[in-house]
Amino acid sequence: MKKHNYSAGPSILPQEVLEKAAAAILDFNNSGLSLIEISHRSKDFVAVMEEARSLALELLGLQGKGYQALFLHGGASLEFLMVPYNLMTKAGKAAYLDTGTWASGAIKEAKTFGETVVVASSKAENYTHIPKNYTVPTDADYFHCTSNNTIFGTQMTEFPDLGIPMVCDMSSDIFSRELDFSKFGLIYAGAQKNMGPAGVTLVVLKEDILGKTGRTIPNMLNLQQHIEKESMYNTPPVFATYTSLLTLQWLKNLGGIAEIEKRNNAKAELLYTEIDRNGLFKGTAVVEDRSKMNVTFLLEDESLTEKFDQSWKAADISGLNGHRSVGGYRASIYNAMPIESVQVLVDVMKELERTA
Amino acid sequence: MKKHNYSAGPSILPQEVLEKAAAAILDFNNSGLSLIEISHRSKDFVAVMEEARSLALELLGLQGKGYQALFLHGGASLEFLMVPYNLMTKAGKAAYLDTGTWASGAIKEAKTFGETVVVASSKAENYTHIPKNYTVPTDADYFHCTSNNTIFGTQMTEFPDLGIPMVCDMSSDIFSRELDFSKFGLIYAGAQKNMGPAGVTLVVLKEDILGKTGRTIPNMLNLQQHIEKESMYNTPPVFATYTSLLTLQWLKNLGGIAEIEKRNNAKAELLYTEIDRNGLFKGTAVVEDRSKMNVTFLLEDESLTEKFDQSWKAADISGLNGHRSVGGYRASIYNAMPIESVQVLVDVMKELERTA
Repeated sequence: MKKHNYSAGPSILPQEVLEKAAAAILDFNNSGLSLIEISHRSKDFVAVMEEARSLALELLGLQGKGYQALFLHGGASLEFLMVPYNLMTKAGKAAYLDTGTWASGAIKEAKTFGETVVVASSKAENYTHIPKNYTVPTDADYFHCTSNNTIFGTQMTEFPDLGIPMVCDMSSDIFSRELDFSKFGLIYAGAQKNMGPAGVTLVVLKEDILGKTGRTIPNMLNLQQHIEKESMYNTPPVFATYTSLLTLQWLKNLGGIAEIEKRNNAKAELLYTEIDRNGLFKGTAVVEDRSKMNVTFLLEDESLTEKFDQSWKAADISGLNGHRSVGGYRASIYNAMPIESVQVLVDVMKELERTA
Repeated sequence: MKKHNYSAGPSILPQEVLEKAAAAILDFNNSGLSLIEISHRSKDFVAVMEEARSLALELLGLQGKGYQALFLHGGASLEFLMVPYNLMTKAGKAAYLDTGTWASGAIKEAKTFGETVVVASSKAENYTHIPKNYTVPTDADYFHCTSNNTIFGTQMTEFPDLGIPMVCDMSSDIFSRELDFSKFGLIYAGAQKNMGPAGVTLVVLKEDILGKTGRTIPNMLNLQQHIEKESMYNTPPVFATYTSLLTLQWLKNLGGIAEIEKRNNAKAELLYTEIDRNGLFKGTAVVEDRSKMNVTFLLEDESLTEKFDQSWKAADISGLNGHRSVGGYRASIYNAMPIESVQVLVDVMKELERTA
């Protein structure tokens, strides 16, 4: 019996993806060899990389629009510095929206490279909301935002229309909802939430935003190099890329982003409805900015903590503890989480109300 | 029936490692969850990272000698730039030995950071030997060398005694032979030859060589940060780190580096003896610098190519084609390759002699 996996990341993946990934470790494509002991230049792995790159663009509706998709090493944290390295001009500046821990990590790295303007921050309110009505300097080299804030349970729904490239860290909600992705100059996402295992990062970018900084960029950090080498500048993270491809194939087969968004909306509605209805619980994020990926909530009466914790653990739920900066609980309900698992949690919450 | 896997990298791994890795994808430590869908901060994965770091130092004989082991993203190619970022002073210079494609890749990245002195190069002879009798400037910040040259089939056996930190890219021969590893200030190695799958890089360094450059280093490239965060500055490449641990455990159980070196010597001797004995073949590297990991050789008579290729493929050998910069053949006989597979190749070579 599998657990109901609410882990915030690395996090739940579709069971069929896990089974195919495990099988490929033993024998890849009936080759008599493991996926992880063949050359990345072999026909079979080159086909994996090509399909992963193309399928990422297809699912985002970006094919034929001047975009490239790359599967790179380093996690989103390496993109925190690759973005300014590749986009911030030597004498220029960048604009950042501060919506949480990861946004401020990106800001910190950008400051190493040049002037970094924080256009708005909700830090003073412990990031319980997404700042609105901010102004982005028109002379900034780019604007950077974070679409979903895993720790604080908030999510952006509006993105500004700007005359400069918009860069977005979508690590925790990529492929979860329909957006006009062509509004973005560069999107990056660590795989380990909706796309695959930890160890690979998707970077989707409009090629024409590159080459304008006047900086000498080390090859391994140079996005133009990675494009020219078709995402194989060096040996790619083979297993994580392949498993991401399996997850993208799973998503396409069930109907793509349009279909998963419906399911994600239904899961989020089920859980938020219970949080708002059940007098024992309260959400931590302001209602209008609630995340559909990470649902953060508290017990109104902390003396019920032990009883609640025992109940959800007894129901085979795992990974529900909140991040230390928020406390309480965090239910991460990424793409691969079935609504049946959310119902199990809701039932535990109702049972607590009945017996408290 | 598994193939005899001579791939240069990613390359052969022990069968028991593949089986354990595949099992962990389905259920890790009887947790009811996959290795790749749990938090990297979970007790079970933290234990993996701690054991991997400690076992790497133990196998290298570096425990208690001021060294740290890190399992990082990015491949050896990211270390090409992290080394100068962390070790080259702002007004200083670094010394490099140019022994092949990867060495020159490292040199190219270092030049982005400052003066880079190439103390010797065998490029003019297509890297068929390791330069000797070079002088390393005593005022360089560090000396960088590449212990084994996968493409050209050469390997260093002597390392200089210097008063400055010695940095070595051991991607393709780490854990294959005994060396006085305490001679090195920093050793790095992409996992995908002797240690595990592509997607993780081992960095072993003496902590006291850091903090002397005067540079502002982005966090994600800062080795001191990675040490302080116990190799979890960001989400590590979970699967590749775990599978590397399994391979290190396999190595320890069979007797550590001392035992594997004996086996590697026997395999290399078997194959080089045949190359030297059999008039149809010749080695490409000078005898004294021959690699015990990558055995490069040519057919004396190229008209036998088709016949030879058919024969080894019929014997279930894969990955024997040489790199385009050398041509001919390359037999990569890393730690996990059994001598029985080398005997199969030797038998095919003898059979070619008998029937040519």
